[in-house]
Amino acid sequence: MKNIHPLTPKEIRHLIRKGRWDKPTAGVAMGYAQANLVILPQKDAFDFLLFCQRNPKPCPLLEVLEPGQFRTKFLSSDGDIRTDIPRYHIYRKGKLQRTVKEIRSFWQKDFVSFLLGCSFSFEEAMLRSNIPVRHIEENKNVPMFISSIPCQPAGVFHGPMVVTMRPIPSHRITRAVQITSRYASVHGAPIHIGEPSTIGIKDLKKPDFGDPVTLKKGEVPVFWACGVTPQAVVMQAKPDLCITHAPGHMFISDLLNEELAIL
Amino acid sequence: MKNIHPLTPKEIRHLIRKGRWDKPTAGVAMGYAQANLVILPQKDAFDFLLFCQRNPKPCPLLEVLEPGQFRTKFLSSDGDIRTDIPRYHIYRKGKLQRTVKEIRSFWQKDFVSFLLGCSFSFEEAMLRSNIPVRHIEENKNVPMFISSIPCQPAGVFHGPMVVTMRPIPSHRITRAVQITSRYASVHGAPIHIGEPSTIGIKDLKKPDFGDPVTLKKGEVPVFWACGVTPQAVVMQAKPDLCITHAPGHMFISDLLNEELAIL
Repeated sequence: MKNIHPLTPKEIRHLIRKGRWDKPTAGVAMGYAQANLVILPQKDAFDFLLFCQRNPKPCPLLEVLEPGQFRTKFLSSDGDIRTDIPRYHIYRKGKLQRTVKEIRSFWQKDFVSFLLGCSFSFEEAMLRSNIPVRHIEENKNVPMFISSIPCQPAGVFHGPMVVTMRPIPSHRITRAVQITSRYASVHGAPIHIGEPSTIGIKDLKKPDFGDPVTLKKGEVPVFWACGVTPQAVVMQAKPDLCITHAPGHMFISDLLNEELAIL
Repeated sequence: MKNIHPLTPKEIRHLIRKGRWDKPTAGVAMGYAQANLVILPQKDAFDFLLFCQRNPKPCPLLEVLEPGQFRTKFLSSDGDIRTDIPRYHIYRKGKLQRTVKEIRSFWQKDFVSFLLGCSFSFEEAMLRSNIPVRHIEENKNVPMFISSIPCQPAGVFHGPMVVTMRPIPSHRITRAVQITSRYASVHGAPIHIGEPSTIGIKDLKKPDFGDPVTLKKGEVPVFWACGVTPQAVVMQAKPDLCITHAPGHMFISDLLNEELAIL
């Protein structure tokens, strides 16, 4: 595999489409927004769209395609949701059944595709301002916790909010809030600062997903809503069929993170 | 009718519910957010929810109720969408058929209610900063224009964006942009500043809806997305049945405008 870092999002999507790139997308096409994918049959789509409307922090919708549509319009002009993601997970009744590199043969005319923002966008902005992002420094997955904050339920979908934790030096918290507030469509401002126990988190060293990271003296744990929330909520509802991106293997859009900023 | 200005939103909703107040709600319960209402049968609801997701500036969703539900949860804890609005319009196939003071007898189990933000919220914030709001000064309706900006279509719903115009002194435009940007869930930042012809507006003295207002020397016309857009788009789609608030007669929520601000 050649070095894909100098390539444009479109060039990378074409490599992925041809099956020539199937790795995680972290650090790929820096500056461009990446998106999580959830595909559901139409009968579950209204409830899920409503769930996202009611819970915009964990479920920031970037684009929703109409039933049967597999081409993106907003996130890219030529994207094909069936082929342009490196790895897909296929779930039946909430259980992972297969991991595949494209889903053309699984496609149904009633599929509704939801593309959701991811925290890569605001992490890049934090790094640009010299705010540490510990899991990147330590080359780990971000620590994720199932909080005690309930999402607003919608139809068959309900469950607790999953949150990510990043240790922030106390004198940089104000700036971290300001920076991430600009990125409302990619989880936005923190949902909690400072007291893990008040949102049901007992031990920062034992995340529910991802890896523990070092909390240094003078640092405060800061929590953001996490894109794992919608996936957890969908799995718990056990729909007949659901297709998602495999964790870390996202859709690379043509939108600059800066274009997503609200201010 | 007694003076309702000192009353709380809950008290005013109860008066409306009892049929004792049926006037426009502008200036009522100052400080609290008011909402536009669109009710559609479930078969049209997914398309309309998608339309709002794709066009958040003209269609800022504050709350969507599940099929058959008529009690609000987010905007108020005791609101009843069937009775708490002073006047309703009932449309069949896109044509206004009746104006009524409550819709209990018209209620259907498949009705989905959409409550959308309105510009009263950001106008109040502009006035607090001594930015003039001309149509309020001149005791008129805000001038509205059908622009040449197409909305992103969704299913059966499509059409041009309707915009409002407020003349702003050129040295206050930056501040007007900053202030209204805070209120993303009530139309947010301007969509155009300064050149009406580039968005298809030929004559500022001839608005498509509302009244013309005075543009003074040194003032620039500034345009915001307008909540008439979703209503125009729904009427154009001619659904079998649609119920809305009568213009100016809105749902008064328990949410402070400040609670809606994103920053």
